[in-house]
Amino acid sequence: MTEQPLRVDRTELRRLLDGRWAQVREQARDVLRGDDFAPVAGLPMQEHRELTLKRLHALADTGMQTYGFPESVGGRGDVGGSVVAFEMLVCDMSLMVKMGVQWGLFGGAIHALGNEQHHREYLPAVMSVDLPGCFAMTETGHGSDVQNLRTTATYDPKTEELVVHTPDESARKDYIGNAARDGRLAVVFAQLHSAGIDHGVHALLVPIRDSTGAPMPGVRIEDCGHKGGINGVDNGRLWFDQVRVPRTNLLNRYGDVGPDGAYSSPIESKNRRFFTMLGTLIRGRVSVAGGAGSAAKAALTIALRYADTRRQFTRPGSEEGTEQEVRLLDYLAHQRKLLPALARTYALHFAQEETVTRLHELSSGEGDERAQRELESRVAGLKAMATWHATKTIQTCREACGGAGYMSDNRITQLKADSDIFTTFEGDNTVLLQQLAKALLTNFQDSFADLDQLGLVRFMTGRMFENVIERTAALPLIDRLVTAAPGMGEDANLYNRGWQLELLEDREKHVVEGLAARLRRARKDGSDAFEVFNHAQDHVLRASRVHMERVVLESFVMGIDRCGDQATTKLLNRLCDLYVMSVVEEDRAWFLEHERLSASRAKRVIAAVNELCRGLRPHAVQLVDAFGLRDEWLAAPIALGDEHARQGDPVPAGDRG
Amino acid sequence: MTEQPLRVDRTELRRLLDGRWAQVREQARDVLRGDDFAPVAGLPMQEHRELTLKRLHALADTGMQTYGFPESVGGRGDVGGSVVAFEMLVCDMSLMVKMGVQWGLFGGAIHALGNEQHHREYLPAVMSVDLPGCFAMTETGHGSDVQNLRTTATYDPKTEELVVHTPDESARKDYIGNAARDGRLAVVFAQLHSAGIDHGVHALLVPIRDSTGAPMPGVRIEDCGHKGGINGVDNGRLWFDQVRVPRTNLLNRYGDVGPDGAYSSPIESKNRRFFTMLGTLIRGRVSVAGGAGSAAKAALTIALRYADTRRQFTRPGSEEGTEQEVRLLDYLAHQRKLLPALARTYALHFAQEETVTRLHELSSGEGDERAQRELESRVAGLKAMATWHATKTIQTCREACGGAGYMSDNRITQLKADSDIFTTFEGDNTVLLQQLAKALLTNFQDSFADLDQLGLVRFMTGRMFENVIERTAALPLIDRLVTAAPGMGEDANLYNRGWQLELLEDREKHVVEGLAARLRRARKDGSDAFEVFNHAQDHVLRASRVHMERVVLESFVMGIDRCGDQATTKLLNRLCDLYVMSVVEEDRAWFLEHERLSASRAKRVIAAVNELCRGLRPHAVQLVDAFGLRDEWLAAPIALGDEHARQGDPVPAGDRG
Repeated sequence: MTEQPLRVDRTELRRLLDGRWAQVREQARDVLRGDDFAPVAGLPMQEHRELTLKRLHALADTGMQTYGFPESVGGRGDVGGSVVAFEMLVCDMSLMVKMGVQWGLFGGAIHALGNEQHHREYLPAVMSVDLPGCFAMTETGHGSDVQNLRTTATYDPKTEELVVHTPDESARKDYIGNAARDGRLAVVFAQLHSAGIDHGVHALLVPIRDSTGAPMPGVRIEDCGHKGGINGVDNGRLWFDQVRVPRTNLLNRYGDVGPDGAYSSPIESKNRRFFTMLGTLIRGRVSVAGGAGSAAKAALTIALRYADTRRQFTRPGSEEGTEQEVRLLDYLAHQRKLLPALARTYALHFAQEETVTRLHELSSGEGDERAQRELESRVAGLKAMATWHATKTIQTCREACGGAGYMSDNRITQLKADSDIFTTFEGDNTVLLQQLAKALLTNFQDSFADLDQLGLVRFMTGRMFENVIERTAALPLIDRLVTAAPGMGEDANLYNRGWQLELLEDREKHVVEGLAARLRRARKDGSDAFEVFNHAQDHVLRASRVHMERVVLESFVMGIDRCGDQATTKLLNRLCDLYVMSVVEEDRAWFLEHERLSASRAKRVIAAVNELCRGLRPHAVQLVDAFGLRDEWLAAPIALGDEHARQGDPVPAGDRG
Repeated sequence: MTEQPLRVDRTELRRLLDGRWAQVREQARDVLRGDDFAPVAGLPMQEHRELTLKRLHALADTGMQTYGFPESVGGRGDVGGSVVAFEMLVCDMSLMVKMGVQWGLFGGAIHALGNEQHHREYLPAVMSVDLPGCFAMTETGHGSDVQNLRTTATYDPKTEELVVHTPDESARKDYIGNAARDGRLAVVFAQLHSAGIDHGVHALLVPIRDSTGAPMPGVRIEDCGHKGGINGVDNGRLWFDQVRVPRTNLLNRYGDVGPDGAYSSPIESKNRRFFTMLGTLIRGRVSVAGGAGSAAKAALTIALRYADTRRQFTRPGSEEGTEQEVRLLDYLAHQRKLLPALARTYALHFAQEETVTRLHELSSGEGDERAQRELESRVAGLKAMATWHATKTIQTCREACGGAGYMSDNRITQLKADSDIFTTFEGDNTVLLQQLAKALLTNFQDSFADLDQLGLVRFMTGRMFENVIERTAALPLIDRLVTAAPGMGEDANLYNRGWQLELLEDREKHVVEGLAARLRRARKDGSDAFEVFNHAQDHVLRASRVHMERVVLESFVMGIDRCGDQATTKLLNRLCDLYVMSVVEEDRAWFLEHERLSASRAKRVIAAVNELCRGLRPHAVQLVDAFGLRDEWLAAPIALGDEHARQGDPVPAGDRG
């Protein structure tokens, strides 16, 4: 690690990171310029909302929203492209979320759950923002428990209408984007009743405002008011008082009501139908993971460029008058704050790329139900890991920039405030990790998708369980590395990739199997199923985390394998080592407790993190610049030569973004 | 832990927490009411600043600011009381910080560094806010390195004036509270030059605005603009262009210039003088630790009351139709998010109380230089631990409240944003922990206060070092407990307090001595002193952390010892167990690596945290309500019966605050 800095091929590194949807990223870099997309801070809420709507129209003019829509209505039919387009909006995260609401959630639901007629009738106006809309799923009393939401849509065969109703306060729709100010039409999720039968949750189109912007009869709208961030988005609450809409407003791809009230569906099981419908909506969740990644990248770019230039104390020389400059990033403590976070950001970037690719391919009809279920589980886990990582990293970046980091001009506090909601929307992270754990325990078998906690505990009872490590798409390469690994012994080089992979696989296998055994055993003595599950909840969440850390490592390894330049590959390998070593360092208590690492080897892991930090320090700015976030998106003076200028140094030439 | 909930004596618990300055807390509860002190959110910056100044005047009318000022000018001469008064302002953290700037920093510096004449001339108008002012220490280029700041104050004997000057951009005063809008007079820290000699950093009074609010000639003022939080405070930048003030504007308690330019000081050593002056200003740092504690308490009160009422999923019964309600706080994962944080908040509360007491007593002239040095070190460590804890805890509370936690009405995001700067102002936490480590290594010997890194490494070279665990004031009780401890063996009950104390003492001793040995060894082979220190920086920070965790535990133990009710004592002992077990759990890798815990015992620590969480769950709301934060300070609908009302439950009667 004391060798000379590497000659990194910046073009190749950018190409590698830009990945399969490089042209979407390039388009974003090309069109997201000027006043329409410059970061803003400190606006009063109403002005901020007005500006964000204006920007949404400007964004519509660029065509960035067309990726996700079918070609039949003028879209590009490129699901992967739509996710990547979303994450590029890091210049203005209110706009990012507004875009997600209008095109991803509202338009996406019409696309995924509606029929051709719905597409033709609505999607062009959705794309152009002539029809701003809402995705009205969440209810105050049922945030994470969508299956039990209480809004009803009751079919009245006399008028061939559906009657939408909010039965009580728990059932009011809450936190709905676009509801407080701009939305005209809402996709409302409700329990569909027809001929006295409850057919479960379905979505239907309900106009909420007329063309003058006044609420429609029977619709009550309330403003959620000021939020911790993304105040350019107008979140609101909705109540429906016996609101009637035509039968054809039902988004009827997975369930329809005939004129006479007869219900039909291509999917017989009510539970399965519900999960199938929900499954079509995971694009939003993948997008949030990507958006969180972008926010983390932006914060790291700002903090690392600053740390690379900022001096705090002079370095005491051996003799009076021989002081040397020390940049913040020369300090080990500062490296430890930022560089493991950078390594994990890279790792998650490659995991995101792989997940988007799978989503894209599954949307094109490739893959079976098991593949769909695996994808859903992966997305649940990745969204949780990526958003928690972003929250933690951006917080660290704020602190690493001291007082300068607290100035809104320098953007970090805003990135933090705006992305903070990501950990709990589009699925609460804790709930998502539980879903993933359930999938791990049932081995992704689609038939168990609808198991609740009780069902899961029952399912596990008395059942032998062997966790089969399901490797990512990278099977052959990962297999080769693991096979070549020197075993789990003391002598293996900490930087041996095969050993690292095996270490994380082995941990996952042990944790998941241990969990299975625990659930199995606990039921034997007749304990209450809820208590059994609840007592093991920390174990449940842990199983998902260690699974994701392994999966993310595999993605990183596969990503590096696509790199076409030797020195760049070498650098990325070091970064990957840092990812693994910091993952292991964080959890070394477990490795010690389970005799996977000896005490002396665990201590060497700590030393390895330090060593890797020192070795990567000279490359830190190259590594963040490779994300290709334009300088005008970052906008932070401390990241754009302000500190050089103040110190009287020459400012590096050219736009590095 | 499966026993019945305890009958807690709420009055006794409140009395215990209110502590020595109970009457200040009661006064705050009495006067901080109504519109003048209600939480606000979402105001545009200028309005927010205007409101905050108005509130500062309203606060002055209550007399809450008088504690910190000498009786000679109408104050109460109660230093401890002034710190407690500050932390009670959790209803409006912009007002809290504005109060801290005006009375703590600006007024406090005139009080601590000025003479009787300065006190008489300025302090009454400072107290009444007729004279709003600034504490102009920090410079853009020298945030943490105060000793090397570059603003100059050069004595001109011809006119008997001091000429204040900003030589370059690095020397501009930055982030100065009250500077952008309200301040008239500033305490400016500058290098004092007289007769060609640099006497080091001194403070002097410089008018920055005239009575119309226009900047004084030669003074340039810039607005820092919008910040990540506390936008009611007008932070700004200051430049001085040969600004002349009378010689008598020098705050000359520790260094004076005669009419002829002759310098005199009661402290001969320039370094020592600097540290003495700085030492008088630690009240601000103690206050920030207290303010952070209040913010954490408020967030926990909101999140725990919500979690105690909020239902998410129904609990699956053994048979259809036997669903039971589950509150969020019934989930182990939710308990683990909030209850260890609550335990640590209690622990830090008692540590804060003890520190304020010491500060108070030292300010009254009790104690020697070593005691002063110990206090400064304690304050550095406590401020770092308390502010990091607050940031982490409030973030967790936000997530634990989901979407509701993101609504500004529910206050958590604002508590987070406002208190976020606490980790890096009044001393950057990382820098503070290094100062503490230095004190630990030099055994608090005052003569080594001015050692820089190089000096420290030289000091350690070849020196044998034994870390003497300096117990807090609690000596006899702690000694007794440790002596009665059953030894470090496997069999000791995890909840044996003596064993716990010994475990943390032993860890501290090992870590600090190991650090000493490492610094000593490393220099032997002629390595560069900076590199030696830098390579050990993670070890340095760790030494301070483990020291503080031990010290905080002792404070907690002593606090419980003052409790006069048996059941309440029992409850607090459980909470203290949770503090210790979560501290040990977090760091159990270290205990394993150093053979302080076996693998099976380490696993039992995890189980103990779970068990304690379950046992404390029924008492969680009592424990936060005991903080005595008024409902109108919390203001969050989700903490004030909103969730009960929505669910149709009766709202608990009366103001719980």
